[in-house]
Amino acid sequence: MNPRTSTERPKEVAMRTDEQWYPGHLRDLDDSECRELLTENRVGRVAWCENGIPAMVPVNYRFDGEYVVFRTSAHSLLARHFRDGPKAFQIDDHDDFQQSGWSVLVQGESEVLEWDELPDPADRPQPWIGGNRNVHIRISAEHISGRRVVPA
Amino acid sequence: MNPRTSTERPKEVAMRTDEQWYPGHLRDLDDSECRELLTENRVGRVAWCENGIPAMVPVNYRFDGEYVVFRTSAHSLLARHFRDGPKAFQIDDHDDFQQSGWSVLVQGESEVLEWDELPDPADRPQPWIGGNRNVHIRISAEHISGRRVVPA
Repeated sequence: MNPRTSTERPKEVAMRTDEQWYPGHLRDLDDSECRELLTENRVGRVAWCENGIPAMVPVNYRFDGEYVVFRTSAHSLLARHFRDGPKAFQIDDHDDFQQSGWSVLVQGESEVLEWDELPDPADRPQPWIGGNRNVHIRISAEHISGRRVVPA
Repeated sequence: MNPRTSTERPKEVAMRTDEQWYPGHLRDLDDSECRELLTENRVGRVAWCENGIPAMVPVNYRFDGEYVVFRTSAHSLLARHFRDGPKAFQIDDHDDFQQSGWSVLVQGESEVLEWDELPDPADRPQPWIGGNRNVHIRISAEHISGRRVVPA
Protein backbone atom coordinates (compact mmCIF):
# COMPACT_ATOMS: atom_id res chain seq x y z
CA MET A 1 0.00 0.00 0.00
CA ASN A 2 1.35 3.40 -0.88
CA PRO A 3 0.89 5.57 2.19
CA ARG A 4 0.87 8.70 0.03
CA THR A 5 -2.15 7.68 -1.98
CA SER A 6 -4.20 5.69 0.53
CA THR A 7 -7.64 7.07 1.21
CA GLU A 8 -8.29 4.86 4.21
CA ARG A 9 -6.78 7.11 6.83
CA PRO A 10 -8.56 10.05 8.40
CA LYS A 11 -7.63 13.38 6.92
CA GLU A 12 -6.46 14.90 10.19
CA VAL A 13 -3.69 12.31 10.37
CA ALA A 14 -2.77 12.96 6.79
CA MET A 15 -2.27 16.63 7.57
CA ARG A 16 -0.09 16.10 10.62
CA THR A 17 2.94 17.51 8.81
CA ASP A 18 3.25 19.45 5.62
CA GLU A 19 5.94 17.25 4.17
CA GLN A 20 5.08 13.66 4.89
CA TRP A 21 1.58 12.43 5.41
CA TYR A 22 2.23 9.26 7.33
CA PRO A 23 5.70 9.37 8.85
CA GLY A 24 7.24 6.08 9.89
CA HIS A 25 9.10 5.56 13.10
CA LEU A 26 12.44 4.13 14.06
CA ARG A 27 12.92 1.18 16.35
CA ASP A 28 16.07 -0.56 17.53
CA LEU A 29 16.69 -4.12 16.40
CA ASP A 30 17.60 -6.52 19.15
CA ASP A 31 20.83 -8.50 19.08
CA SER A 32 19.26 -11.68 17.67
CA GLU A 33 17.58 -9.80 14.81
CA CYS A 34 20.89 -8.14 13.95
CA ARG A 35 22.73 -11.47 13.97
CA GLU A 36 20.10 -13.11 11.81
CA LEU A 37 20.39 -10.35 9.21
CA LEU A 38 24.18 -10.54 9.33
CA THR A 39 24.07 -14.30 8.84
CA GLU A 40 21.64 -14.39 5.95
CA ASN A 41 23.12 -11.57 3.87
CA ARG A 42 26.21 -11.75 1.63
CA VAL A 43 26.95 -8.15 0.59
CA GLY A 44 27.80 -5.30 2.97
CA ARG A 45 30.12 -2.35 3.37
CA VAL A 46 33.40 -2.10 5.23
CA ALA A 47 34.41 1.29 6.61
CA TRP A 48 37.67 2.69 7.91
CA CYS A 49 39.09 6.03 9.02
CA GLU A 50 42.22 7.58 7.58
CA ASN A 51 43.36 10.77 9.25
CA GLY A 52 39.87 11.25 10.63
CA ILE A 53 38.26 10.89 7.19
CA PRO A 54 35.78 8.00 6.83
CA ALA A 55 35.64 5.81 3.72
CA MET A 56 33.63 2.72 2.83
CA VAL A 57 33.24 0.22 0.02
CA PRO A 58 30.98 -2.77 -0.61
CA VAL A 59 32.32 -6.29 -0.13
CA ASN A 60 31.12 -9.87 -0.35
CA TYR A 61 31.22 -11.19 3.21
CA ARG A 62 30.24 -13.98 5.56
CA PHE A 63 29.35 -13.69 9.24
CA ASP A 64 30.17 -16.67 11.44
CA GLY A 65 28.54 -15.39 14.63
CA GLU A 66 31.72 -13.81 15.91
CA TYR A 67 33.46 -12.22 12.93
CA VAL A 68 32.62 -10.59 9.63
CA VAL A 69 35.01 -12.09 7.07
CA PHE A 70 35.77 -10.66 3.63
CA ARG A 71 38.49 -11.15 1.05
CA THR A 72 40.76 -8.87 -0.88
CA SER A 73 43.97 -9.01 -2.89
CA ALA A 74 47.35 -8.60 -1.29
CA HIS A 75 48.13 -5.11 -2.57
CA SER A 76 44.68 -3.56 -2.37
CA LEU A 77 43.54 -0.49 -0.49
CA LEU A 78 41.58 -2.77 1.85
CA ALA A 79 44.58 -4.99 2.57
CA ARG A 80 46.55 -1.88 3.55
CA HIS A 81 43.86 -0.40 5.82
CA PHE A 82 42.48 -3.53 7.46
CA ARG A 83 45.63 -5.07 8.96
CA ASP A 84 44.54 -3.87 12.39
CA GLY A 85 42.68 -1.15 14.24
CA PRO A 86 39.03 -0.22 14.69
CA LYS A 87 36.71 -0.72 11.73
CA ALA A 88 33.04 -0.87 10.90
CA PHE A 89 30.87 -3.06 8.75
CA GLN A 90 27.31 -2.29 7.73
CA ILE A 91 24.40 -3.91 5.93
CA ASP A 92 21.05 -2.41 5.12
CA ASP A 93 18.08 -2.70 2.82
CA HIS A 94 15.17 -0.44 2.04
CA ASP A 95 11.89 -0.34 0.17
CA ASP A 96 11.25 2.95 -1.62
CA PHE A 97 7.60 2.18 -2.08
CA GLN A 98 6.86 1.28 1.53
CA GLN A 99 9.34 3.89 2.74
CA SER A 100 10.76 1.34 5.12
CA GLY A 101 14.12 -0.28 5.72
CA TRP A 102 16.59 -1.63 8.21
CA SER A 103 20.32 -1.41 8.92
CA VAL A 104 22.87 -3.23 11.06
CA LEU A 105 26.21 -1.77 12.13
CA VAL A 106 29.13 -3.84 13.39
CA GLN A 107 32.16 -2.22 15.00
CA GLY A 108 35.34 -3.93 16.09
CA GLU A 109 39.01 -4.56 15.39
CA SER A 110 40.16 -5.92 12.05
CA GLU A 111 42.91 -8.44 11.45
CA VAL A 112 44.28 -10.53 8.63
CA LEU A 113 43.60 -14.26 8.94
CA GLU A 114 46.49 -16.69 8.89
CA TRP A 115 46.20 -19.69 6.57
CA ASP A 116 45.42 -22.04 9.44
CA GLU A 117 42.60 -19.75 10.57
CA LEU A 118 40.71 -19.77 7.27
CA PRO A 119 37.11 -20.97 7.37
CA ASP A 120 36.13 -24.16 5.54
CA PRO A 121 35.95 -23.45 1.80
CA ALA A 122 32.13 -23.64 1.85
CA ASP A 123 31.99 -20.97 4.54
CA ARG A 124 34.36 -18.50 2.89
CA PRO A 125 33.04 -15.31 1.31
CA GLN A 126 32.80 -15.61 -2.47
CA PRO A 127 33.96 -12.40 -4.16
CA TRP A 128 32.17 -11.45 -7.34
CA ILE A 129 35.37 -9.91 -8.63
CA GLY A 130 38.02 -12.06 -10.25
CA GLY A 131 41.72 -12.08 -9.49
CA ASN A 132 43.71 -13.56 -6.68
CA ARG A 133 41.74 -12.33 -3.69
CA ASN A 134 43.38 -14.60 -1.17
CA VAL A 135 43.79 -12.22 1.76
CA HIS A 136 41.02 -12.99 4.26
CA ILE A 137 40.27 -10.21 6.72
CA ARG A 138 37.99 -10.37 9.71
CA ILE A 139 36.30 -7.71 11.79
CA SER A 140 35.33 -8.80 15.29
CA ALA A 141 31.69 -8.12 16.07
CA GLU A 142 32.44 -6.43 19.38
CA HIS A 143 29.57 -4.02 19.06
CA ILE A 144 26.42 -4.75 17.06
CA SER A 145 23.48 -2.41 16.69
CA GLY A 146 20.62 -2.10 14.26
CA ARG A 147 17.43 -0.28 13.56
CA ARG A 148 14.38 -0.44 11.42
CA VAL A 149 12.16 2.20 9.89
CA VAL A 150 8.66 0.89 10.43
CA PRO A 151 6.18 2.38 7.96
CA ALA A 152 3.24 4.25 9.42
CA MET B 1 21.86 -15.42 -17.33
CA ASN B 2 23.25 -17.11 -14.29
CA PRO B 3 27.01 -17.33 -14.86
CA ARG B 4 27.26 -20.35 -12.59
CA THR B 5 24.95 -22.51 -14.63
CA SER B 6 25.67 -21.39 -18.18
CA THR B 7 26.92 -24.09 -20.50
CA GLU B 8 27.88 -21.75 -23.31
CA ARG B 9 31.39 -21.00 -22.19
CA PRO B 10 34.37 -23.27 -22.85
CA LYS B 11 35.36 -25.44 -19.96
CA GLU B 12 38.91 -24.08 -19.71
CA VAL B 13 37.46 -20.68 -18.82
CA ALA B 14 35.12 -22.26 -16.32
CA MET B 15 38.07 -23.86 -14.55
CA ARG B 16 40.17 -20.74 -14.33
CA THR B 17 39.74 -20.63 -10.55
CA ASP B 18 38.46 -23.17 -8.12
CA GLU B 19 36.02 -20.82 -6.47
CA GLN B 20 34.29 -18.76 -9.10
CA TRP B 21 33.77 -19.86 -12.62
CA TYR B 22 33.30 -16.55 -14.35
CA PRO B 23 34.60 -13.78 -12.15
CA GLY B 24 33.49 -10.24 -12.86
CA HIS B 25 35.82 -7.31 -12.95
CA LEU B 26 35.92 -3.91 -11.36
CA ARG B 27 35.95 -0.66 -13.26
CA ASP B 28 36.01 2.92 -12.04
CA LEU B 29 32.98 5.09 -12.70
CA ASP B 30 33.76 8.47 -14.22
CA ASP B 31 32.69 11.68 -12.53
CA SER B 32 29.53 12.14 -14.63
CA GLU B 33 28.33 8.59 -13.92
CA CYS B 34 28.86 9.15 -10.19
CA ARG B 35 26.95 12.45 -10.28
CA GLU B 36 24.09 10.94 -12.20
CA LEU B 37 23.74 8.14 -9.65
CA LEU B 38 23.95 10.64 -6.77
CA THR B 39 21.26 12.79 -8.37
CA GLU B 40 18.78 10.05 -9.14
CA ASN B 41 18.95 8.17 -5.83
CA ARG B 42 17.27 9.15 -2.54
CA VAL B 43 18.70 6.80 0.09
CA GLY B 44 22.36 6.56 1.08
CA ARG B 45 24.63 6.24 4.09
CA VAL B 46 26.45 8.94 6.02
CA ALA B 47 29.68 8.00 7.80
CA TRP B 48 31.76 9.67 10.46
CA CYS B 49 34.76 8.87 12.64
CA GLU B 50 34.77 9.12 16.42
CA ASN B 51 38.12 8.51 18.09
CA GLY B 52 39.26 6.69 14.97
CA ILE B 53 36.24 4.39 14.94
CA PRO B 54 34.03 4.59 11.85
CA ALA B 55 30.24 4.51 12.01
CA MET B 56 27.53 4.89 9.40
CA VAL B 57 23.74 4.97 9.12
CA PRO B 58 21.29 5.23 6.22
CA VAL B 59 19.59 8.56 5.49
CA ASN B 60 17.16 10.04 3.00
CA TYR B 61 19.15 12.58 1.00
CA ARG B 62 19.24 14.86 -2.01
CA PHE B 63 22.27 15.80 -4.08
CA ASP B 64 22.24 19.22 -5.70
CA GLY B 65 25.43 18.83 -7.74
CA GLU B 66 27.62 20.33 -5.04
CA TYR B 67 26.34 19.04 -1.72
CA VAL B 68 24.69 15.97 -0.27
CA VAL B 69 21.90 17.24 2.01
CA PHE B 70 20.10 15.22 4.66
CA ARG B 71 17.93 16.02 7.66
CA THR B 72 17.95 15.05 11.28
CA SER B 73 16.47 16.19 14.58
CA ALA B 74 18.19 18.74 16.77
CA HIS B 75 19.38 16.39 19.50
CA SER B 76 20.26 13.34 17.41
CA LEU B 77 23.55 11.52 17.12
CA LEU B 78 23.89 12.86 13.57
CA ALA B 79 23.28 16.46 14.63
CA ARG B 80 26.07 16.09 17.18
CA HIS B 81 28.59 14.52 14.81
CA PHE B 82 27.90 16.44 11.61
CA ARG B 83 28.33 20.03 12.78
CA ASP B 84 31.69 20.17 11.04
CA GLY B 85 34.71 18.10 10.05
CA PRO B 86 35.41 15.47 7.39
CA LYS B 87 32.63 13.03 6.58
CA ALA B 88 31.66 10.50 3.95
CA PHE B 89 28.48 9.62 2.13
CA GLN B 90 27.92 6.47 0.11
CA ILE B 91 25.32 4.93 -2.19
CA ASP B 92 25.40 1.53 -3.81
CA ASP B 93 23.24 -1.13 -5.35
CA HIS B 94 23.82 -4.73 -6.30
CA ASP B 95 22.21 -7.65 -8.07
CA ASP B 96 22.77 -10.99 -6.36
CA PHE B 97 21.73 -12.96 -9.40
CA GLN B 98 23.97 -11.15 -11.89
CA GLN B 99 26.68 -10.79 -9.23
CA SER B 100 27.07 -7.18 -10.26
CA GLY B 101 26.77 -3.81 -8.57
CA TRP B 102 28.06 -0.28 -8.26
CA SER B 103 28.97 2.16 -5.50
CA VAL B 104 29.70 5.86 -5.21
CA LEU B 105 31.65 7.45 -2.36
CA VAL B 106 31.56 11.16 -1.52
CA GLN B 107 34.01 12.69 0.94
CA GLY B 108 34.02 16.25 2.23
CA GLU B 109 33.31 18.58 5.13
CA SER B 110 29.92 18.64 6.80
CA GLU B 111 28.07 21.69 8.07
CA VAL B 112 24.65 22.60 9.37
CA LEU B 113 22.57 24.73 7.00
CA GLU B 114 21.24 28.07 8.21
CA TRP B 115 17.57 28.80 7.59
CA ASP B 116 18.33 31.14 4.71
CA GLU B 117 20.45 28.43 3.05
CA LEU B 118 17.72 25.80 2.92
CA PRO B 119 16.85 24.41 -0.52
CA ASP B 120 13.40 25.05 -1.98
CA PRO B 121 10.86 22.77 -0.24
CA ALA B 122 10.55 20.59 -3.34
CA ASP B 123 14.30 20.00 -3.37
CA ARG B 124 14.66 19.09 0.31
CA PRO B 125 15.25 15.51 1.37
CA GLN B 126 12.08 13.84 2.61
CA PRO B 127 12.78 11.71 5.68
CA TRP B 128 10.75 8.54 6.03
CA ILE B 129 10.87 8.92 9.78
CA GLY B 130 8.44 11.23 11.53
CA GLY B 131 9.26 13.82 14.12
CA ASN B 132 10.68 17.28 13.88
CA ARG B 133 13.68 16.63 11.62
CA ASN B 134 14.39 20.25 10.85
CA VAL B 135 18.17 20.27 11.05
CA HIS B 136 19.50 20.21 7.49
CA ILE B 137 23.10 19.06 7.13
CA ARG B 138 25.20 19.15 4.02
CA ILE B 139 28.38 17.33 3.04
CA SER B 140 30.41 19.02 0.35
CA ALA B 141 31.21 16.72 -2.56
CA GLU B 142 34.91 17.57 -2.55
CA HIS B 143 35.95 14.11 -3.58
CA ILE B 144 33.72 11.76 -5.57
CA SER B 145 34.69 8.27 -6.68
CA GLY B 146 32.78 5.23 -7.81
CA ARG B 147 33.16 1.77 -9.21
CA ARG B 148 31.16 -0.95 -10.80
CA VAL B 149 31.45 -4.73 -10.72
CA VAL B 150 30.83 -5.78 -14.30
CA PRO B 151 29.63 -9.37 -14.56
CA ALA B 152 31.79 -11.70 -16.63
